[in-house]
Amino acid sequence: MSAFQIEGGFSGIVASSRVRLARNVKGYTYGQQSPEKLKEIADNVWEAVGAAPAIAGEFDRHQIRPGLAETQQMVENHIISPALAQRGGWVVVSKDGGASIMIGEEDHLRIQVMGSGLCPRECLAEAQRLAALIEHSVPMDFDEKLGYLTACPTNLGTGLRVSVMLHLPMLTAAGAMQNVIGWAGRQGCAVRGAFGEGSGAEGGFYQLSNQVTLGVSEDMLAAKLIDVAAKLIEEEERARQAVREKDETGLLDKLCRAAGVLKTARRITTAEALSCLSDVLVGLQMQVLGGVTAQAVCAAERAMRPATLTVRAGKDLTPAERDKLRADLLRREIGDKLAILACA
Amino acid sequence: MSAFQIEGGFSGIVASSRVRLARNVKGYTYGQQSPEKLKEIADNVWEAVGAAPAIAGEFDRHQIRPGLAETQQMVENHIISPALAQRGGWVVVSKDGGASIMIGEEDHLRIQVMGSGLCPRECLAEAQRLAALIEHSVPMDFDEKLGYLTACPTNLGTGLRVSVMLHLPMLTAAGAMQNVIGWAGRQGCAVRGAFGEGSGAEGGFYQLSNQVTLGVSEDMLAAKLIDVAAKLIEEEERARQAVREKDETGLLDKLCRAAGVLKTARRITTAEALSCLSDVLVGLQMQVLGGVTAQAVCAAERAMRPATLTVRAGKDLTPAERDKLRADLLRREIGDKLAILACA
Repeated sequence: MSAFQIEGGFSGIVASSRVRLARNVKGYTYGQQSPEKLKEIADNVWEAVGAAPAIAGEFDRHQIRPGLAETQQMVENHIISPALAQRGGWVVVSKDGGASIMIGEEDHLRIQVMGSGLCPRECLAEAQRLAALIEHSVPMDFDEKLGYLTACPTNLGTGLRVSVMLHLPMLTAAGAMQNVIGWAGRQGCAVRGAFGEGSGAEGGFYQLSNQVTLGVSEDMLAAKLIDVAAKLIEEEERARQAVREKDETGLLDKLCRAAGVLKTARRITTAEALSCLSDVLVGLQMQVLGGVTAQAVCAAERAMRPATLTVRAGKDLTPAERDKLRADLLRREIGDKLAILACA
Repeated sequence: MSAFQIEGGFSGIVASSRVRLARNVKGYTYGQQSPEKLKEIADNVWEAVGAAPAIAGEFDRHQIRPGLAETQQMVENHIISPALAQRGGWVVVSKDGGASIMIGEEDHLRIQVMGSGLCPRECLAEAQRLAALIEHSVPMDFDEKLGYLTACPTNLGTGLRVSVMLHLPMLTAAGAMQNVIGWAGRQGCAVRGAFGEGSGAEGGFYQLSNQVTLGVSEDMLAAKLIDVAAKLIEEEERARQAVREKDETGLLDKLCRAAGVLKTARRITTAEALSCLSDVLVGLQMQVLGGVTAQAVCAAERAMRPATLTVRAGKDLTPAERDKLRADLLRREIGDKLAILACA
C-alpha cells in the first residue's frame, strides 16, 4: 500500500471516503482557462510535486482529452470528475490512484484524496498535507477574512468537500431516499448519485457530502459528516433487518440468486452487474454470503465499468464483447470465490 | 427396476414414450357410467390382475376423487389423464408407476404403459401383454371387421395411441412449431402440449402421437411414429446447432444462468423452474452442463409440480411455501450436483 490509498475499513455500508480541496492559483483569472494557461498551471503544479521530497516520484501526470476511453476510465475510477473529463485539462495522480490533483476543473486546482471505508479525517489530513506541499511553490488566492477563494461561492473558505460513498440499497428499495435526502439537507449535507451532481444512484450507492464550507473548520466539517453518515448507516441497517424479518426467504432468494448470476453469467450488462454486486455487498454484511471481501467487490465494481474494460482490452469493443469480458471478469474475481453461507 | 418401467434411454430430446390401448367391456353402455357400474368394472379388472400370476402383486388400486391433491399428483406424473381426474373413477397402477389401467375415462378402460426415452415398441409390447391378461378374464367389445370398439371413432380398430414426449425448446424459440405441427399432421401425427389435448407446451415439451388407428397394424403405427419423431429430433438438433453458431456466448449464458438459478434460488415458481430445467436438458445434450442425468432432470420436473409437492409435504401449502419447497428440492436434486463444463 502506498501512502495515498487510505484504508478505513469497509463497514458494510460505507464503501469509501473522499476529500477535495478547491484552490485557485494567484495571478490567473477564474473559470475556464486557455489551453496554454492551463498547461502553465499544470507545469507549475507538476514542478511543485517534483520539488517536494516527501512525495516526489510517487505521482504521474496525464493530459485529459475529452472522449478517450482512458479519460472515461479515470472518471469510472473516481480519479477525475465528469466535469474535467468533459472540459479537458490535466491531472497529477498518485501511482495508486488514491490522490489526484485535477487542473482545469471549476477551480484551477482540485486536490482530492480517497480511501476505502469510513476515513474522512485521514483523507482530510492527507489532502491538507498535499495542498501545503503544492502551496509551498505555487501561491494560492487566499483572503484573511474569507479564506480560500473559489470560482463558486459555495466552496469559499476551506474549499473543502468531504464525502463518503454510502451503500443504501434497502432504504432505496423501501422508497425512503426522499426523506433521507431531505433530512440530510437540514443537517447541511447533500446526498447525490455515485458520480456526484446529476448522476444516478446506481446499485444503491450515494455520495453524502458537506454543503457548507464557509465559517466552519475543516475538522468540524469532517466530524459533522461522520455524524450524519452514522445516522444513515443505522437507518440502512434497520431497513435490512426489517426486510429480513418480513420475508427472510425472499431476501435470501434475492441475495443468493445474485451470487448465482455472478457465478454463471457469460454476458452481463453494467446495470445488471451493479445490481448483483449491490446484492452481494448486502449478502456479505448480513453473513448470507462469504468468500470475498467487500473491498474486492468494490474493486470489481470499478474494474467492470465500460471504459475501464475497454482500456484493459487495449482495443475498441462492441457492447456484446464488453458484456462478455465483464461476465468473465466478475466470474473470476467474485463469482468463483463466492460462498453461500446461509441456508434458511 | 420393476418390469413396468421401461428404460429406452434418454436421447437428449425424447424424454419418454407412452402407449395406451382403449378397451370397452362387453355388456356395458358406452360413455360415462354410474359410480356403481364403474366400481363393478374396476372390481372385475382388479380381480383379473390379481388372477394373473405374471403380474399379481405388482399393482395397486386407487379410487380417483376429483379435487384431491393425490389425484392431481397422478396427473402431474402422467399416471392418469386430466379427463379422468375431472370425471373421477378408478386406476389400477403398477407400483413403479410405469403401467396403469384407467377406469372411467372416455372408454371403460385405458391401458397405459410409459417408459423413459424412445421406446414405443417396448411400451406397446408391454401394454399388449397387460391387455391380453385382462381380456383373459374380462371380455372386451371386439368386431371382426372393425377391431376394438371405442367410444370415439378416432380410436376404433387397435384402440392404440402411441406417443413420445419430445423436448423441442429451440424449435419453439425459433417460432418453427406451427410448421412442425402442420408437417406432422400430414404424416398422420398430432403434436400437443405436455399434458395432451388443450395443454400448453411448458418448458418446450410436446407430445407427438399417432392420429389414425383404423386399418393399420399396431407395429406399423409405432414404426411410423418413430420415423416422425426421428425427423423432429433432427430438426431440433439442427436448430440447436444454428443457435450455437449464431451466438455461442448468448447460448452458454442462457444455459449457465439456468444452472445458476437452480443452484441458488430459495424460492421458485413452477413456470420458472420448468424453463430452467428445460435449459439444463439442452445444456446436458450440448455438453455445456454435466453432473446430473437427463433422467434425473425429468424426475425433478415431475417431483417439483404443485400437487406432488403438496402430497409430499402432507399438508396444504401456501404458494410461497410451495415455491420454497420447490427451490429446496431442485437445489438438492439438481442444482448442487450440476457442473458447468463449457468455458467459451
